[in-house]
Amino acid sequence: MKKPILALLACCAMLPALAQREDSLAIRRLSDEIMTHSQAYANLRVLTKTIGGRLAGSPQMVKAERWGEAALRAAGADRVFTQECKVPHWVRGDKEQARIVSNRRDFVPPLKVLALGNSVGTGAAGVTAPVLEVRSFEELEQLKDQVKGKIVFYNYPFNPTFIKTFYSYGDAVRFRAQGPSRASKYGALAVIVRSMSHSTDNEPHTGSTRYNDSFPKIAAVAIGLQDADRLSRRIADDPSAKVFLRTTCRMLPDTIGHNIIGELKGSEFPDEYVTVGGHLDSWDVCEGAHDDGAGCVQSIELLRAFRAAGIRPKRTLRVVLFANEENGVRGGNKYADEAKEKGEKHLFALESDAGGFTPRGFIMEMTDAQRAKVKSWAPLFFPYGLYDFDEAGGGVDVTPLNRRLGTPVAELSPDSQRYFDYHHAASDTFEAVNKRELELGAVGMAALIYLVDKYGL
Amino acid sequence: MKKPILALLACCAMLPALAQREDSLAIRRLSDEIMTHSQAYANLRVLTKTIGGRLAGSPQMVKAERWGEAALRAAGADRVFTQECKVPHWVRGDKEQARIVSNRRDFVPPLKVLALGNSVGTGAAGVTAPVLEVRSFEELEQLKDQVKGKIVFYNYPFNPTFIKTFYSYGDAVRFRAQGPSRASKYGALAVIVRSMSHSTDNEPHTGSTRYNDSFPKIAAVAIGLQDADRLSRRIADDPSAKVFLRTTCRMLPDTIGHNIIGELKGSEFPDEYVTVGGHLDSWDVCEGAHDDGAGCVQSIELLRAFRAAGIRPKRTLRVVLFANEENGVRGGNKYADEAKEKGEKHLFALESDAGGFTPRGFIMEMTDAQRAKVKSWAPLFFPYGLYDFDEAGGGVDVTPLNRRLGTPVAELSPDSQRYFDYHHAASDTFEAVNKRELELGAVGMAALIYLVDKYGL
Repeated sequence: MKKPILALLACCAMLPALAQREDSLAIRRLSDEIMTHSQAYANLRVLTKTIGGRLAGSPQMVKAERWGEAALRAAGADRVFTQECKVPHWVRGDKEQARIVSNRRDFVPPLKVLALGNSVGTGAAGVTAPVLEVRSFEELEQLKDQVKGKIVFYNYPFNPTFIKTFYSYGDAVRFRAQGPSRASKYGALAVIVRSMSHSTDNEPHTGSTRYNDSFPKIAAVAIGLQDADRLSRRIADDPSAKVFLRTTCRMLPDTIGHNIIGELKGSEFPDEYVTVGGHLDSWDVCEGAHDDGAGCVQSIELLRAFRAAGIRPKRTLRVVLFANEENGVRGGNKYADEAKEKGEKHLFALESDAGGFTPRGFIMEMTDAQRAKVKSWAPLFFPYGLYDFDEAGGGVDVTPLNRRLGTPVAELSPDSQRYFDYHHAASDTFEAVNKRELELGAVGMAALIYLVDKYGL
Repeated sequence: MKKPILALLACCAMLPALAQREDSLAIRRLSDEIMTHSQAYANLRVLTKTIGGRLAGSPQMVKAERWGEAALRAAGADRVFTQECKVPHWVRGDKEQARIVSNRRDFVPPLKVLALGNSVGTGAAGVTAPVLEVRSFEELEQLKDQVKGKIVFYNYPFNPTFIKTFYSYGDAVRFRAQGPSRASKYGALAVIVRSMSHSTDNEPHTGSTRYNDSFPKIAAVAIGLQDADRLSRRIADDPSAKVFLRTTCRMLPDTIGHNIIGELKGSEFPDEYVTVGGHLDSWDVCEGAHDDGAGCVQSIELLRAFRAAGIRPKRTLRVVLFANEENGVRGGNKYADEAKEKGEKHLFALESDAGGFTPRGFIMEMTDAQRAKVKSWAPLFFPYGLYDFDEAGGGVDVTPLNRRLGTPVAELSPDSQRYFDYHHAASDTFEAVNKRELELGAVGMAALIYLVDKYGL
């Protein structure tokens, strides 16, 4: 394309004209501020490149907490404080080993795997066993008599036909979550899970598993897509093929983590809160740029932009960098518990935790009337490319506020096509984030916070 | 984000219920076919990695034409043919040289520049001259007495506040197009233009310039953003600073190129045409993946998907890989001229030439009634993330059909945030294209072609 597009945006009219004009100008001010002077990208570079992966309980978690406090102060928060909570402390141990062993003695490259979060290790000697491949839990049940002494390989493909990729994830994630215990029930020694991704590379994608305490805990790894296909072909073709697997991960006793909180005091109702945030932890094997460095730096940016644009919220705006979303949600639960305990009034909470991609709308957990109110603001969002307000859901870290206090909650809904290329994999790096896409997400969030703070919900 | 989103898509109702159901299923069939079995990404890999940059007149142009014919046959075209046209033959010559020279004799790294398309060279010896920086044509006019014997440096920044980046391009591109002749009018020796981009790297972005024959043709280059800032600081700080510039590009006599055309014969009105395409040429300095390999492979994929899904269009579907968009639009003009000459009936033409990013809608050049008809189909597009049908415009290669025959034309409008990171720069590579985003663009195009073919416009 080389010719400029000459037409101007046609802006629909639904709100009372004057109010809409004023709101439209305020949002434009926030947008111009963010698109011109944003610190989000620079902040993300520091968080990802100088701290990196920051799983709960790791030394990097502590560094990230210090970084978060400093970044919130630099953004102009009136007050920065921390909220202590217990966090799980899972460690990966040695680099995972996995390879096909066979009587054929041909050369086969190692399999690229990552232990699942919260999983137990194989023991230092590793385990070698034949592999039973299944594509569903139904198939596992049919073959249950063959499971004993084997490594069960869940090779369920990520469905490419869902347009919103979170549906593919919702469809496939049960194998990671329940797969190990369901195989252990029938005597499996370990589990290999096809990564929840449709990327074109071979990176394995980790993520938490959940053991059922009724069955022995067994080792579990995710495998890259190309290696999943290679393994599948090999065991179909070579009856002597087995897999050697060695992981030394383990769960240590709980340790201490913190939610990092920065406030911009409300001008009219300082005791009412509007929360916006992301989670500060990430998996250990990546830089956690999209998941969820992006959400953290967007939330911090939003506070900076309100200040820089001279827009003081009526309610107190709280930016929360939540602890330990990935393998415990302890930060999100702590925040809601304390809010309830103290009888705080929370008007609304918004999270960004679906990647730093161009925003398309919000998923929301709220009453129909509240949703209708948000949708009445649609014309104000349209110039920024946000149009999708119909889906249910809310960020993992703000959902406890909804459950405990009934607070309406939402999550930024960015374009989802690339998210599962990077999600929980080594490829989730700073370089995978586009500066403008990240900033536009912050614009969408700022617009929603501005409107909710002004008009209530 | 880790929890699956459970809500289902709410699909609005505007078309008669039965027709909408049938259309919705047909579009779903096309979508599933493309998202599951697309050849677009594999085709793009071959075009970009084995052929690469393919400017009109280059040996790679000829290779790309052969590739296009083969790819259309493999996709199942009933008939593949070519349409000959004259194309300009501009060659870059030696690698451009540019550096700051100064009495200070400190070390300064070379400036990263690319000659503008269609520009003349400096001559083999190059030119060395003081630099006059301007930020607008108004400033040039004010300083016109100082222009003589200088290199004029248009350092106009790409406006970051436009949400749709094509507006920033439309705003800035005049300096590339008119800048050389407007400076030459006052005796400038050469021109340096700040690249039309907001990328975070230092790649220069080329593109055509247009000389005004009333003034001497002078050499002109684009400069990377970081080097533009560096040059600006240096000349402000160092009165002795000059720039040495050497380009040996030149325009050779016209040569022969071809539009490559594949048809799927219409079942009811074989003599009526619906055209879909992209341009096969690209700048020489990049792989031309987004611009416009993406549009070519999407158009080919659309034909393949119609066949594979068992949907035979009523009108003849023509996939056109246009020759020479970048520095001449000779292919697009030839196609319209021949259509007019032969009295062909063209119902509609669609181009994809704004990058292989997630689609958001279409820009359209048509009557209000035709636009209203397309907009009545909006509920059918919404599940695929297309919602924006309000902008005017059409693809550069199909616009001649609109001008000559009055054919309604449109262009796919993908998310534009990343486009100018890559546009006309060495960074426009296969790796910059995401497989699913590319495929979803083809889905949006297939849906529009399906509806226009079925219901007319």
